[in-house]
Amino acid sequence: MAEVAVFGYGTVGSGVVEVIDKNAELMKSRGADMHVKYVLDIRDFPGDPNSSKLVKDVDVILNDPEISVVCETMGGATFAYEYSKKALEKGISVCTSNKELVEAKGAELMAIAREHSCSYLFEASVGGGIPLIRTINDALTAERIDRIYGILNGTTNYILTKMDEDGAGFDEVLKEAQEKGYAEKDPTADIEGHDACRKIAILASLVSGKKVSWTDIETEGITNIDTEDFSYAKELGCSIKLIAMCDFNEGCSARVSPRLITADSPLNCVKGVFNGVLIHSDMLDDSLYYGRGAGKLATASAVVADAFECVRFAGQEVGRGWTDEALKLNDPGDMKGRFFVRVDNANADEAADKLGAEKVIKHDKESGLVSAVMSETEFKKILEGLAGVIKFIRF
Amino acid sequence: MAEVAVFGYGTVGSGVVEVIDKNAELMKSRGADMHVKYVLDIRDFPGDPNSSKLVKDVDVILNDPEISVVCETMGGATFAYEYSKKALEKGISVCTSNKELVEAKGAELMAIAREHSCSYLFEASVGGGIPLIRTINDALTAERIDRIYGILNGTTNYILTKMDEDGAGFDEVLKEAQEKGYAEKDPTADIEGHDACRKIAILASLVSGKKVSWTDIETEGITNIDTEDFSYAKELGCSIKLIAMCDFNEGCSARVSPRLITADSPLNCVKGVFNGVLIHSDMLDDSLYYGRGAGKLATASAVVADAFECVRFAGQEVGRGWTDEALKLNDPGDMKGRFFVRVDNANADEAADKLGAEKVIKHDKESGLVSAVMSETEFKKILEGLAGVIKFIRF
Repeated sequence: MAEVAVFGYGTVGSGVVEVIDKNAELMKSRGADMHVKYVLDIRDFPGDPNSSKLVKDVDVILNDPEISVVCETMGGATFAYEYSKKALEKGISVCTSNKELVEAKGAELMAIAREHSCSYLFEASVGGGIPLIRTINDALTAERIDRIYGILNGTTNYILTKMDEDGAGFDEVLKEAQEKGYAEKDPTADIEGHDACRKIAILASLVSGKKVSWTDIETEGITNIDTEDFSYAKELGCSIKLIAMCDFNEGCSARVSPRLITADSPLNCVKGVFNGVLIHSDMLDDSLYYGRGAGKLATASAVVADAFECVRFAGQEVGRGWTDEALKLNDPGDMKGRFFVRVDNANADEAADKLGAEKVIKHDKESGLVSAVMSETEFKKILEGLAGVIKFIRF
Repeated sequence: MAEVAVFGYGTVGSGVVEVIDKNAELMKSRGADMHVKYVLDIRDFPGDPNSSKLVKDVDVILNDPEISVVCETMGGATFAYEYSKKALEKGISVCTSNKELVEAKGAELMAIAREHSCSYLFEASVGGGIPLIRTINDALTAERIDRIYGILNGTTNYILTKMDEDGAGFDEVLKEAQEKGYAEKDPTADIEGHDACRKIAILASLVSGKKVSWTDIETEGITNIDTEDFSYAKELGCSIKLIAMCDFNEGCSARVSPRLITADSPLNCVKGVFNGVLIHSDMLDDSLYYGRGAGKLATASAVVADAFECVRFAGQEVGRGWTDEALKLNDPGDMKGRFFVRVDNANADEAADKLGAEKVIKHDKESGLVSAVMSETEFKKILEGLAGVIKFIRF
């Protein structure tokens, strides 16, 4: 039986204990017999059923030779980093849901794991319970991945879905999301796209094998999306989603921004708090992976699946990551696509002409049009010369 | 370098050679260095670039100690069975796309593989390139899977999507599908649901660990679906898909039949020739896996991914399967759900009343209604006592 420790007894950490508790026998039958021996947390949990496992001193855990795997569900990049590093240096594998740490220090921790014949796994750090990392590493092994389009943040997808389906305004829906627990009191990281950005940086690093920094990725959240945008989108047969994308066709391009998604795209089925990642690869063409990108048990399940792999393949290096060699991203202005533009009626014809728009949708005081395919740099240049532009959304 | 043989140089077999040829360096960098040494086929391929690899005698391959993996893309359950068995008995792993063989003889072949410290893998046998088997075996390791709803046949999904989007009739769309190569000259296996049935039998066997026989699964194809059904479906905000399902909540239930799929289901995004499998499991809740369920390179990619795993973990048993212990399915009449019923207008009110229908959609000469939730046995009993019933479709 493999002894496991959980670092952090918050939502996901308590979920990890619950998943292992409930499905231990099932996992044993599948080849990994594991048991939670310790739970590390500085807080007290009086009356908690797992009180006997709680410790406040990480060294108690790290000095116990029985411990072979740690599930790190602390969050943050300070103590989680320090403790993960210590564990790996002792040959104890670490499985984490901590996207901030994976993005910031993943390369270093993966290198330490390799040096000490253990593993640093991070399935739960992107897309919660959806097995994205394992799919890319272990399933799409014969594929060259050239593009990833992801709906990777449940908060913003919930908001956009509600705005789309109910015709409600952004502020109203955000408030409702907060009341329902789908958005934080301070929702900045979600609604400004930072959360999705960290996740696509992790995926881009994984696919390229080099470090992609989230701060290098141009990011735009959903705060500028309004009901009029959805009205146009419907007329175009589209929905609007916050898309975190990376493209590997020539070097690596990446961006996070709202996009109009056409009716034929499988990304349309990704609604509410669900996440979905559309991968395009050379042999398989399009494939989509959909599920709960957050939530106690969904996320915990992914952490436990990582622990399962460490236990089942104990002594072997599992998983794949990236080095600390920085990958310089392409100029995001070079990315080509269509752009949806809202413009005052007075300037609509000129805008349609200069942007090569095939279609103009006229509303009371303004119009919406879809440009021809062009690079973002070209597009913005044309925009500079236009009057009456209200906003644009990428396709 | 691992030497691989391909059994069968048809569409998928030549795809396997192509995938390995194109992505060999990439796979080597990922940990599996493989090369195709032989291609087995009784036919001649004059002028083919792989002529030098072609052999007609399987023993040439099986007696070559360099061969560690075979990709079996022959189809059928006679020669493919005999050759797979011989290979496994020599400790040569076999990776296959052959659903007929996997369903019929999988348990035996998996047992032989285990006895000889090699593996019998079959990712490509269900859902083509979508990594379903690997997801169930290696990703959802902490999950108890309780239900699978699959759109597993591209031919029927293409037909139903066309009928839905274009309002075209079944015969017309079938003809078009045949012209485009999406349906066989003899389309029986696809349109009658047999293909989807074999695939769900494989998935049910995998999840349960016991043998589920496709002939035990009640199967209904799409030949009875017409444009009027789609007209009603639209009014109900639904689409109609051929669903191959299995449920593990109490024992195992399974069925293949057309079903109305509600607007909020992610299965709605599975259109045209694409496949999609919706898995419900205890911790993750719903997850969906979408992609090309057929096609030369998509299918070949899955076979090669299996070969990759055999090479990367050479000497270890990889994959999980089932035993030959037969799993007796529950009476399909016990499955509960709603039923959509078309009935003559003269009998609509009585039908609505007896079936607990909340909604009745009136057309010219007939009506459509949705029953309350009930078992199929109960439903059929009520139906016996009703006049004017035209047809029913399950939800």
